[in-house]
Amino acid sequence: MYIRKQRLLTPGPTPLYPPALHAMMASDIHHRTEDFRKIYKSALAGLKEVMGTSNDVLCFTASGTGAMEASVTNLFSHGDKVIVCSAGKFGERWGQIAKAYGLQMTLIEHGYGGTIAPERVEVALRAEPGVKGVFLQASETSTGAEHDVESIGKIVQQYPEALFVVDAITGLGTMPLEIEAWGLDIVIGGSQKSFMIPPGLAFMSVSPKAWERAKTATLPHFYFDMAKEKKNGDLGESAWTPSTALILALDEALKYVNGMGIKTLVSNAQMLAKATRAAAAELDLKVFAERPGSSVTALCPPAGLDSGKIVKGFREKFNSIITNGQGSMKGQIFRLAHLGYFDITDMFGVIAGLELILRANGVPVELGKGVAAVQRVYEESLTS
Amino acid sequence: MYIRKQRLLTPGPTPLYPPALHAMMASDIHHRTEDFRKIYKSALAGLKEVMGTSNDVLCFTASGTGAMEASVTNLFSHGDKVIVCSAGKFGERWGQIAKAYGLQMTLIEHGYGGTIAPERVEVALRAEPGVKGVFLQASETSTGAEHDVESIGKIVQQYPEALFVVDAITGLGTMPLEIEAWGLDIVIGGSQKSFMIPPGLAFMSVSPKAWERAKTATLPHFYFDMAKEKKNGDLGESAWTPSTALILALDEALKYVNGMGIKTLVSNAQMLAKATRAAAAELDLKVFAERPGSSVTALCPPAGLDSGKIVKGFREKFNSIITNGQGSMKGQIFRLAHLGYFDITDMFGVIAGLELILRANGVPVELGKGVAAVQRVYEESLTS
Repeated sequence: MYIRKQRLLTPGPTPLYPPALHAMMASDIHHRTEDFRKIYKSALAGLKEVMGTSNDVLCFTASGTGAMEASVTNLFSHGDKVIVCSAGKFGERWGQIAKAYGLQMTLIEHGYGGTIAPERVEVALRAEPGVKGVFLQASETSTGAEHDVESIGKIVQQYPEALFVVDAITGLGTMPLEIEAWGLDIVIGGSQKSFMIPPGLAFMSVSPKAWERAKTATLPHFYFDMAKEKKNGDLGESAWTPSTALILALDEALKYVNGMGIKTLVSNAQMLAKATRAAAAELDLKVFAERPGSSVTALCPPAGLDSGKIVKGFREKFNSIITNGQGSMKGQIFRLAHLGYFDITDMFGVIAGLELILRANGVPVELGKGVAAVQRVYEESLTS
Repeated sequence: MYIRKQRLLTPGPTPLYPPALHAMMASDIHHRTEDFRKIYKSALAGLKEVMGTSNDVLCFTASGTGAMEASVTNLFSHGDKVIVCSAGKFGERWGQIAKAYGLQMTLIEHGYGGTIAPERVEVALRAEPGVKGVFLQASETSTGAEHDVESIGKIVQQYPEALFVVDAITGLGTMPLEIEAWGLDIVIGGSQKSFMIPPGLAFMSVSPKAWERAKTATLPHFYFDMAKEKKNGDLGESAWTPSTALILALDEALKYVNGMGIKTLVSNAQMLAKATRAAAAELDLKVFAERPGSSVTALCPPAGLDSGKIVKGFREKFNSIITNGQGSMKGQIFRLAHLGYFDITDMFGVIAGLELILRANGVPVELGKGVAAVQRVYEESLTS
C-alpha cells in the first residue's frame, strides 16, 4: 500500500481552485448586508465578463438542472411548440423538462456520440411554423461531443418567435461562445464546472428577446423566478437566501478566471483535450464522439474490456475518480475531463496511470508512449 | 499561457494533507481548556506512535532548528566534549550550534554528497575519552544522503557517557529508525516534512539516558525547556502558548499517518525514490549522493547545464517548486522530494516535466523514457 492522493478527474465536480475553497471560510456573513451585496455584485459582474456578454446574468442557488427548468418555466407557456436537440443524456433532460411542463415538442435526436447537424434544426423550424424555442447542449457531457452552436444560433436567429436556449454547463470555458453574435438567448452554466468551485450554483444569461418573452409566458414557477432574480440582483441581492459560501468562492474563482481571460481558459481545455486525443491515438483507443469537444474526452476501451475496469483501476491503483459512460453507455466508454482547473501535469498523471491500468487488464501497451504524445502536444503548444 | 497549478515538490514544506489543512479552521479554541488538552494529548500520543517509541516525545512551537538548539542547551554544559558528524548543510548547523554554546567539538567531516562512515565515529570516540554527545543527521536534506544510523547508534551505545542526538527532520518517515534498539537518545522531527502540515512545530523524543543528563546540564536556556515541556505535556498542555492551528493540523495528519502505519509511509517514500533513480538512469542523470536516501533525491544536471535552469524550468513551465543545491552546491544539483504526502502520480508529473525541461535546454531526451521507468517501478511494486 502506498499514499494515493484523491484526484477528481471528472467533468463536474472538477478540481477546486484552492483560493476559492479558502474564501468559503469567510461565510460568517449575512446575505442582507452591504458587505455581502458588494461580493454578490462583484460575482455577477465577473460572470458577465467570463460569459463575454452585456446581457443580464442571473445566479440561482441550485445545480444546473434548476436553471434548465427556470428557462422553461419562465419563458414558455403550456402547449408552446419547441424543438429539442438531443444527442445524449443531457439532451434527454431537455426533453424530460419540456414534457413535464406540457410543451409541444419536436425531438431532433441523434445516437450517443453524434451531434445534431444544424441543417436538421433548419428543416424542423421550416416544417413547423410558430416554434417558440430551440433547446441544445453546447457540449454534451455524457459523450464528450460538441455542437456547432454558432451555426445553429444563426439559423434560430432568423425566426423572431424562437428563443435559442443553450445548456452550456460544460460548454462555458471549453469552447468559444459568442452570446450576442450567435443569438444565444439563454446560456446556462454551473459552478462545479469551469468555475472550479463546488456544485450548488447555476448561472444564466438572458437576452432582451428572452426578457420580452418572459412577460407573456404563463408556466407556473416560484423559486426559479428570473424577473425576481434580476430585480434583486441589480440591488446586489438574491431573491431567496443564497449559498453564501459558494458566492464567496465564486467571486474568488472569477477573479482568477477573468485574470487569465476566458480565452486562456478555453485554450487550456482545448490543449488538454488535444493532448488526450494524441495519447489515445498512440494507445489505440478510439475517441467516442464524432465531433469531440474539450470539456471531456470519452474514450472506448479496447474490444472486450468493460470501461468499468478502467474506472476501477483509476480508483484502486491511483485513488483517482474518472467517470464511466452514463445510462446505456455504461461499460462502453470512460471519460477524462479537461474543464476548469486542470493542467498539463494532471494529464501526464492521467495518461501514465491509464497505461498501467490497460496493462494490468492485459492490453499490450508500451509504457510512456501515450505520455510522450501528451508531452509533444505541450511542447509544440509552447513553441507555436 | 495555460493553467499551471502550483505544486510544491520540495523537501519541506512538503505538500499538505488536505484534511489537516481544513482542521486548522477549528483554531477558534483556547489552549488552556479541556477541549484543547484532549487534542494536544492525542497529538503527543500520535507522535510517539509514529516514532515507534515509548520514550517521551516533546513538541515545541518552533521550526526544527529550535529543537536542535534545545537538545544542545538542555543536555550539555559549557566545554563538554562532543562529536559532530557533518556531511552537508545541516551537519554544519550542528557545528554552528555547538560553537555558539561553547562546546568542545571534534568535527568529523565529509564533503557534500558523502556520508560519515560509522568507523570514523568509533575511532573518534576511542581517541577522545569523555565525549558527552554525538550529533548526526539521519538524512542530510542538502544532498539527499542517508546515514547508517543503526551502526553509528550501536557504536555510541557502548559509551555510557555519550548521548546520541539525531536530527531526523527528513529522516522520520523516509527510513527505518529504531529509537530504542539503536540507542537514539534524541530524535528530532519537524512538522513540514513527513508530517504533511505547514512549518512551525518541532518534535523531539527523549530517552531516559538523556533525561538523566538534563539534570546536570548547565547551558542556559529559557523558551526551549525540555523538562518544562515534559511536565506540561503530561497534563495536555505546552509550556508556552502553542501554535494551536498547527496542533489541530498535526493531530489530523497523525491519524492519517498512523492509520496507514509508519512502515507504509516509509515504503512510499522509498518506492518514489527508487522510481526517481530509475528515471534518472534512463535520462543519464547522476544521483549525487553516494548513499542516497528516500527523503529527497539530488540529481546532477548534464555537464555544462546549471541546475538553476532546471529549477527555473519547473517554475516557469509547470509552476512547480523544486529546490536547487544549497550553499556551494547551488547550480550543481537539483533536488526532487519524496517525503510525506507525495504519490506516484506526482512522480509521473515530475519526470514528464523534467524530460521537457531538459529538451528545452538542448539535452537530447527521448520523451516518455524516464516516465516509463517510473511506471515500471510502480508496476513491479504492486505485483511484488
